[in-house]
Amino acid sequence: MRKTIFALLTVLALASFVADKPKKVIFFGDSITQAGVKPNGYITRIGELLTGKNLGSKYELIGAGIGGNKVYDLYLRLESDVLEKKPDAVFIYVGVNDVWHKTTSGTGTDPDKFVRFYQALIDKIKASGAKVVLCTPAVIGEKNDFSNPQDGDMNHYSNLIRKLAEKNSLPLVDLRKAFLAYDLANNPSNKDSGVLTTDRVHLNDLGNNTVAELMLAELLKL
Amino acid sequence: MRKTIFALLTVLALASFVADKPKKVIFFGDSITQAGVKPNGYITRIGELLTGKNLGSKYELIGAGIGGNKVYDLYLRLESDVLEKKPDAVFIYVGVNDVWHKTTSGTGTDPDKFVRFYQALIDKIKASGAKVVLCTPAVIGEKNDFSNPQDGDMNHYSNLIRKLAEKNSLPLVDLRKAFLAYDLANNPSNKDSGVLTTDRVHLNDLGNNTVAELMLAELLKL
Amino acid sequence: MRKTIFALLTVLALASFVADKPKKVIFFGDSITQAGVKPNGYITRIGELLTGKNLGSKYELIGAGIGGNKVYDLYLRLESDVLEKKPDAVFIYVGVNDVWHKTTSGTGTDPDKFVRFYQALIDKIKASGAKVVLCTPAVIGEKNDFSNPQDGDMNHYSNLIRKLAEKNSLPLVDLRKAFLAYDLANNPSNKDSGVLTTDRVHLNDLGNNTVAELMLAELLKL
Amino acid sequence: MRKTIFALLTVLALASFVADKPKKVIFFGDSITQAGVKPNGYITRIGELLTGKNLGSKYELIGAGIGGNKVYDLYLRLESDVLEKKPDAVFIYVGVNDVWHKTTSGTGTDPDKFVRFYQALIDKIKASGAKVVLCTPAVIGEKNDFSNPQDGDMNHYSNLIRKLAEKNSLPLVDLRKAFLAYDLANNPSNKDSGVLTTDRVHLNDLGNNTVAELMLAELLKL
Repeated sequence: MRKTIFALLTVLALASFVADKPKKVIFFGDSITQAGVKPNGYITRIGELLTGKNLGSKYELIGAGIGGNKVYDLYLRLESDVLEKKPDAVFIYVGVNDVWHKTTSGTGTDPDKFVRFYQALIDKIKASGAKVVLCTPAVIGEKNDFSNPQDGDMNHYSNLIRKLAEKNSLPLVDLRKAFLAYDLANNPSNKDSGVLTTDRVHLNDLGNNTVAELMLAELLKL
Repeated sequence: MRKTIFALLTVLALASFVADKPKKVIFFGDSITQAGVKPNGYITRIGELLTGKNLGSKYELIGAGIGGNKVYDLYLRLESDVLEKKPDAVFIYVGVNDVWHKTTSGTGTDPDKFVRFYQALIDKIKASGAKVVLCTPAVIGEKNDFSNPQDGDMNHYSNLIRKLAEKNSLPLVDLRKAFLAYDLANNPSNKDSGVLTTDRVHLNDLGNNTVAELMLAELLKL
Repeated sequence: MRKTIFALLTVLALASFVADKPKKVIFFGDSITQAGVKPNGYITRIGELLTGKNLGSKYELIGAGIGGNKVYDLYLRLESDVLEKKPDAVFIYVGVNDVWHKTTSGTGTDPDKFVRFYQALIDKIKASGAKVVLCTPAVIGEKNDFSNPQDGDMNHYSNLIRKLAEKNSLPLVDLRKAFLAYDLANNPSNKDSGVLTTDRVHLNDLGNNTVAELMLAELLKL
Repeated sequence: MRKTIFALLTVLALASFVADKPKKVIFFGDSITQAGVKPNGYITRIGELLTGKNLGSKYELIGAGIGGNKVYDLYLRLESDVLEKKPDAVFIYVGVNDVWHKTTSGTGTDPDKFVRFYQALIDKIKASGAKVVLCTPAVIGEKNDFSNPQDGDMNHYSNLIRKLAEKNSLPLVDLRKAFLAYDLANNPSNKDSGVLTTDRVHLNDLGNNTVAELMLAELLKL
């Protein structure tokens, strides 16, 4: 009898030990994610929100963002920067540069290739056993009358990501949808930036907060 | 008495003569306007609509469209192709290539320069005594979920034209607004072309008709 | 007899008076010319070189450069910035932005339109009675192994200008040829900038000097 | 003694068997390589040249070219299209689209990323045990006065490949150098195409032959 109880306690302890091992979550993206680990950055903010829910010890959050990255740059460093770290979940947050660099340097990403590389990311991460969460890119410009020059293309690439989420039955954090809705309601003077971004693209505190809350909701479901 | 009557008749005859001289209207633009003088083209169609109203002899309609033209190309040939013909009114219909060529050949038009050349067109035409009607460019792609890559920039440049119309107190034919509304209501499968255009940009019969009716309404007010 | 001598003296005095009126020379271009009127700028330098030859009072040098200008921008402001000033001679120095902006903002100038606007500049300046001197654009990048990304296009547009000079029988200051030759001889480490430019495009003191001497040689022939 | 002879014969037979197994050579590239397997294509031509040397059975030549491919597209399909086939040698022939698409669709490849992906290709192929041969991209336009718009950028990317060959101690087939030299000597009228290409980029029979001979020379050294 005592032996049985002891064994049971051992099992519980082990289970507890396993349960206590924090889930490793990697945020994989561009300069927006690179800034996400700074104070007030969206990854830092997710950590604070988790701590506020007494869940801080349950998750290990890792930023893997590099400025200027497009979808194929993520693919090139997927092995070293993500898979080797054996994450439990990966948030893919990419697309701004794929659209933006078309105009600024002639080096954006064709939509068909965007899909092909994105699918390859999904396949490899899933094959590693980790969960995958997709995100649409938020904004290049915050005007809410649809007159930011890249608005059409941003919607186009966001649609491509939405279809990838659906096709692969993956959760989606639709940042673009959320940002457009927020800007529509809260940007009465049709400003180019300063609502959720500092410079049309990179997040201000409110922008980081918005991303953090939307990602957190998805994170807690995993 | 007879003298008075004679004088009166003379005046009436002269007035009639003056009234009978048709108003010369020039449509100034790119390939869309170049195709406008073909059978079923929008200029041809305006002519037919005027004839149907017994106004055919009151207007002389002249197409002055050249494929690939941007706002500065219009400026370069303004003197020879428009002003020398001493028109009574000029419809300016430009903007598609200013946006589109950014992506297809790296030779689009910067927004500030678009405004500067457009204003110069307005100033010179007004100085000649002719009336000016502005038009927004219709579409590059007919998807109605705002995911045509140039949608944002097309809205941007249309806004610039709307502001020019307002600032210069000039009539505006808002083709973009009309086309977006039509596509929203009549393109349930979110097609890229085939509703009002043949190829995302150039007008099919219905597109030509739509442009013709909107321009005619403005023409009759002049 | 005394009357005749007096008349002769009067004529000589008048001729002298006319001769003393300085020739007005306008330098018409982009940011490189805008900087040309600064201390050490190429226009300032031409003035100094003229003074050194006791010709300072014979010429009035006017800078008419605006940053970011392309050939069609010159055309738009030709009347106000050049012709209204009734110059005796105009140096046209343009082309860098027509090539460069293709990559940096998708708003360069197509070669056929470059030629058309350039020819229109020539025609209007010649019609005003002023002399015209053409210049090829110097460099975008000073590497001398022909690996500056825009080298081919810069040669292409320089060829277009050379043909315009030939076709219109106009003097040409071939800055590109001179800069390429100088860089070939004086840039052993294949540097991107720092030989004749500060930043691959804008002139350092030596670059300003080089331009000044080449233009001066042509100026003295007019 | 007989035993020794028998053993020797066995060794020779085995050596002969091993020697008879053809070397598998993969040509990895874009549309130029895709066309290389057609009659008169450069890969077909290498095969014919090998047969002419009685070496036809010693090599298995495989084309792995896909139209529109850039360096990162090669990386994405390296595993499935190259490594899984266990080649003995791989010719990498890429770069035209990385440069060209900057202008035609705003989707070229930044030079730093070109190098990064190219190096990754080299690393993975070498790790598989196969030999690697690098090639510079030949031409975009055959004018020999260095006025093809992409000449500078083509030289730039060719330099990057030359440095990669040197850094990795790999053989290089310098197609660009060879094509420039040939065009310099054999294109007196400075034509845009028709010397070694059909359309400025894709190879005509002579172009395919030229590539075949240069690659063959390197192939025989492996």
